[in-house]
Amino acid sequence: MDTLTRLEKTIDQRRKADPGQSYVAHLNHRGLPVMVRKFGEEAVETCVAALSGSREELIAEAADSIFHLMVMLAAKGVSLDEVMYELDRREGVSGHEEKASRSE
Amino acid sequence: MDTLTRLEKTIDQRRKADPGQSYVAHLNHRGLPVMVRKFGEEAVETCVAALSGSREELIAEAADSIFHLMVMLAAKGVSLDEVMYELDRREGVSGHEEKASRSE
Amino acid sequence: MDTLTRLEKTIDQRRKADPGQSYVAHLNHRGLPVMVRKFGEEAVETCVAALSGSREELIAEAADSIFHLMVMLAAKGVSLDEVMYELDRREGVSGHEEKASRSE
Amino acid sequence: MDTLTRLEKTIDQRRKADPGQSYVAHLNHRGLPVMVRKFGEEAVETCVAALSGSREELIAEAADSIFHLMVMLAAKGVSLDEVMYELDRREGVSGHEEKASRSE
Repeated sequence: MDTLTRLEKTIDQRRKADPGQSYVAHLNHRGLPVMVRKFGEEAVETCVAALSGSREELIAEAADSIFHLMVMLAAKGVSLDEVMYELDRREGVSGHEEKASRSE
Repeated sequence: MDTLTRLEKTIDQRRKADPGQSYVAHLNHRGLPVMVRKFGEEAVETCVAALSGSREELIAEAADSIFHLMVMLAAKGVSLDEVMYELDRREGVSGHEEKASRSE
Repeated sequence: MDTLTRLEKTIDQRRKADPGQSYVAHLNHRGLPVMVRKFGEEAVETCVAALSGSREELIAEAADSIFHLMVMLAAKGVSLDEVMYELDRREGVSGHEEKASRSE
Repeated sequence: MDTLTRLEKTIDQRRKADPGQSYVAHLNHRGLPVMVRKFGEEAVETCVAALSGSREELIAEAADSIFHLMVMLAAKGVSLDEVMYELDRREGVSGHEEKASRSE
């Protein structure tokens, strides 16, 4: 099983666990705004690492961003498959056309 | 081949393409700060969608965030495997301990 | 009258204007999530400018961040005075103590 | 003297202080990427507070954003006056025209 599929299962199992024992349960216990804030903060840290950090820092922050994105998606009942399906759907479409089709 | 592996290959092929023909080439042509900005902006949009958007908007913004994260990682020479390896390495470690081990 | 006080008045006057004539009215017409998104995006751009842009870019992005923060605060009925009062209240408190007093 | 002018003086005085005694000195000691990260994180928290927090939370997060923006500007040698001058310069210009004139 690949990494993100396994991570999604782990997050799903831990969501209802004891908030004192699991970080995922702790975040869910605190509520959606806290999960959103965590993802946003990790994304900012990933941006800063990409511009001024080491390779190792960038890898660690990118992993943090993906982890917190998945925690947030799970809390909203969105599955990894739905996001991957959306990425698949876009592929093949050339960049500029694709961008145009989803710009506001 | 799974979605992200295929997407990584596509991004790698398009990076050196004609900036007028490919969105990925266009971003690479404009430089790292623009790629970082795009990822950061999509992350903000994902946060807003999680708190006030529809399910479809959240899925679309999450896909945008992952796409622009991968474009940025490719520009920095970081592979998807390195980020997945980091996520695997953390798994099994219980949440709170893990969090403690990587907090600043 | 100082800049921010005058800007607050301008924003307040334009909020109910014709969305086709005023950018502030246009943002208010589109709703709070769009205003929040704009502020978040400008903040990201300010971060990127601070790390890789020119002095002029940083000044322009900082101005954009403050402008969109004020548009968002006005939409929520929060006045500039309330934020300034909060900053005044904190001043005098030494940094580390202050930080401790408002950390989560 | 108004709040932001006084705050700018305080930040300037504390920048070179003992990092163990002053939060501003501590941030400067850690370097620009840490200051940028802090501003970005506070901006994310302000976004989340605007969409799901109380009035008091929004005021507190907006104050945090402005404080960390000013710490970051000071570290880059940009004065508050330069940002205010930029805001003044834009005022009077109608919103949509202004936006067009500074869009990428």
